Amino acid sequence: MSKELKIGLFGFGTVGRGLFELLRDVPTANVNIKKICVRDITRDRGITADFTDSPDDIFNDPEINFIVELIDDADASFDIVSQALTKKLPVVTGNKKMLAHKLPKLIELQKKYGTTLLYDASACGSIPVIRNLEEYYDNDLLISVKGILNGSSNFILSKIFNENMSHGDALRLASDEGFLESNPSLDLDGWDSLFKLVIIGVHAFGVYVDPDKVFNYGITNMNDDDIRFSREKDRRIKLVAHVEKLADNRLVMCVIPQLISKNKYIYSVEDEFNGVVIKGLFYDKQFMFGRGAGARPTSSAVLSDITASLYDYKYEYKKLNHSSSLPQFSDDISFRLYVRYNGPVDLGLLHFDEIYESYSSKGYNYIVSRVSLKSLHSAREALNARKVFLAAYPAD
Amino acid sequence: MSKELKIGLFGFGTVGRGLFELLRDVPTANVNIKKICVRDITRDRGITADFTDSPDDIFNDPEINFIVELIDDADASFDIVSQALTKKLPVVTGNKKMLAHKLPKLIELQKKYGTTLLYDASACGSIPVIRNLEEYYDNDLLISVKGILNGSSNFILSKIFNENMSHGDALRLASDEGFLESNPSLDLDGWDSLFKLVIIGVHAFGVYVDPDKVFNYGITNMNDDDIRFSREKDRRIKLVAHVEKLADNRLVMCVIPQLISKNKYIYSVEDEFNGVVIKGLFYDKQFMFGRGAGARPTSSAVLSDITASLYDYKYEYKKLNHSSSLPQFSDDISFRLYVRYNGPVDLGLLHFDEIYESYSSKGYNYIVSRVSLKSLHSAREALNARKVFLAAYPAD
Repeated sequence: MSKELKIGLFGFGTVGRGLFELLRDVPTANVNIKKICVRDITRDRGITADFTDSPDDIFNDPEINFIVELIDDADASFDIVSQALTKKLPVVTGNKKMLAHKLPKLIELQKKYGTTLLYDASACGSIPVIRNLEEYYDNDLLISVKGILNGSSNFILSKIFNENMSHGDALRLASDEGFLESNPSLDLDGWDSLFKLVIIGVHAFGVYVDPDKVFNYGITNMNDDDIRFSREKDRRIKLVAHVEKLADNRLVMCVIPQLISKNKYIYSVEDEFNGVVIKGLFYDKQFMFGRGAGARPTSSAVLSDITASLYDYKYEYKKLNHSSSLPQFSDDISFRLYVRYNGPVDLGLLHFDEIYESYSSKGYNYIVSRVSLKSLHSAREALNARKVFLAAYPAD
Repeated sequence: MSKELKIGLFGFGTVGRGLFELLRDVPTANVNIKKICVRDITRDRGITADFTDSPDDIFNDPEINFIVELIDDADASFDIVSQALTKKLPVVTGNKKMLAHKLPKLIELQKKYGTTLLYDASACGSIPVIRNLEEYYDNDLLISVKGILNGSSNFILSKIFNENMSHGDALRLASDEGFLESNPSLDLDGWDSLFKLVIIGVHAFGVYVDPDKVFNYGITNMNDDDIRFSREKDRRIKLVAHVEKLADNRLVMCVIPQLISKNKYIYSVEDEFNGVVIKGLFYDKQFMFGRGAGARPTSSAVLSDITASLYDYKYEYKKLNHSSSLPQFSDDISFRLYVRYNGPVDLGLLHFDEIYESYSSKGYNYIVSRVSLKSLHSAREALNARKVFLAAYPAD
């Protein structure tokens, strides 16, 4: 290793600034930020650095040999990342939305131009989940990856369940702490978890699934009745992302609130933490746990991607490239579900495989039933519009 | 990847057989066991395989291009591993005792012959702790690695604390479950944890510390009074291995029982599980958790080392090779300690920096004090001979 990375950094939001401060406070040999591209160059950011508002200033700087892309906008992110790859500049990105939509194209570009793209920071903040799936769980033992992938919604749920905070207060606090995306629906409606799950699916099972095909549902519609129901059952509501290879080689994926009982690892994942349970043959279950939101944990993950590049580390996409029988995505699977509705909702929206419980009262009604992912997916918009709350409710 | 591994396997004990069964039950592309070297070739093992009792049968087989060494004896293990490296045969080993004593020599051999040695299975059963330290926590942010590294002693402690089992019954159960080494002192007196900690130290901080220099103390002397004391304080006793880089760049290491309070991650690591807390600047704390003992988890870790070799993965020993200011090992550090003694023990053995509490009664006496690791280390044999029990007792 005698390489020296001169970084062109795109974006100076929470994570970009976090990375800048990290490298200032803990100097890392052979890693330097040379130029920073921001939208508004006139803003005083209180630091001395070489700012520009023109991407070309970075791409045409012959000294810059490494790109770090940490901007919010998915389309612009894709432009930058694909341009970097095309110009044979190795690049690190944290944009999960962009990755979830563009991974096949980006894998193709990496191959075509022999350039490296790393994005461990995109998936679980500081937990090296991609790297571990890629490098360590690279054999056929892996069965499922399940976890809490969104720190912000988990923070809110923790405040509600542990500190009896109201939904509204918890939301405001999460916002004050800087945990929420500029568009909170990304966090609260499960989109952020979904994007991460799509990325995880590629490295866990070698299968890319278009996010549009995957059912996700969030916690926006959750109300006090749902919280009370969960407490009565001695469970907590968590927003869970889940990908699993079934015995018949079908792959199921979804993001959905779940009523979690005490004996589960993720029951104890609190606040803005993420927790991932990796399950496989022979080793059974492993659990990884760490900070999943915030400038400092995420920027430390970006730094790990950068230092890995010093050693020419790259994702091999082992399963995608080498597995002889990749699993096939399917949403034709049903599971036990709590469905809460307030008013006169026509539940004919859903095709129930079986109804286990049904409760009605003025303003609070629920059904515990078996429903397929496919049926949920096609009814999602309608359910959401009617403020119906859904949560997986395994019998345990 | 078009390589095919034809493995010469040394040892067919718990883990060797586990690996054989794993590859039989979950066939892995391009990985085959060709020959197995065992001590007693006449024993019926109930399987069909090419057994031999001569290492040369493996080393002279021109088809064998990979060695997996899973025997108990540390000296014989070193012979096999160093012979493999010298013959440019990549090798995977699980022998932590051997590694803890011979790592510097083995690193030298890898370099000299350009051959690869992998041993993630040696450190925490199924948790990829070496790989993560090597690959992901490879920057200067890392502060400490602390955890429960021995599944067997943790199993015993769990049975005592959670199921009120007697020390003796718990020991017998651990033995029946196949969790104990053939020499139980390795597990119970902290040697196994120590060996793993030495290996972790190399990959976490780039520093090899001779195990003889590191203080370790186990749970053999723990009695009912200690268990009661711990319960009264609402804590659990765990056997904790700990390596930490202090702000002044000194490195401290030890293995010692600790009175753990409820708010710590490792409080909840139960049974034969291992749990490792990785602490660093910026990302704060991360926690990895998984099965740390038993045939199947360990053999799955061996398989991960084997499949990594298909992709020419090797440890770079990044910190060891590239850090400009490696921390220096020191045992000149003191901490808060519970010291329980029964009879008339001359505690002049220890140099107390400060005594916080002192309790005497017929047959049960303890002191809570501040003592240096150095002082403990020099008194270890004498304390052990007098059945004194020690546990770190942080004020929290």
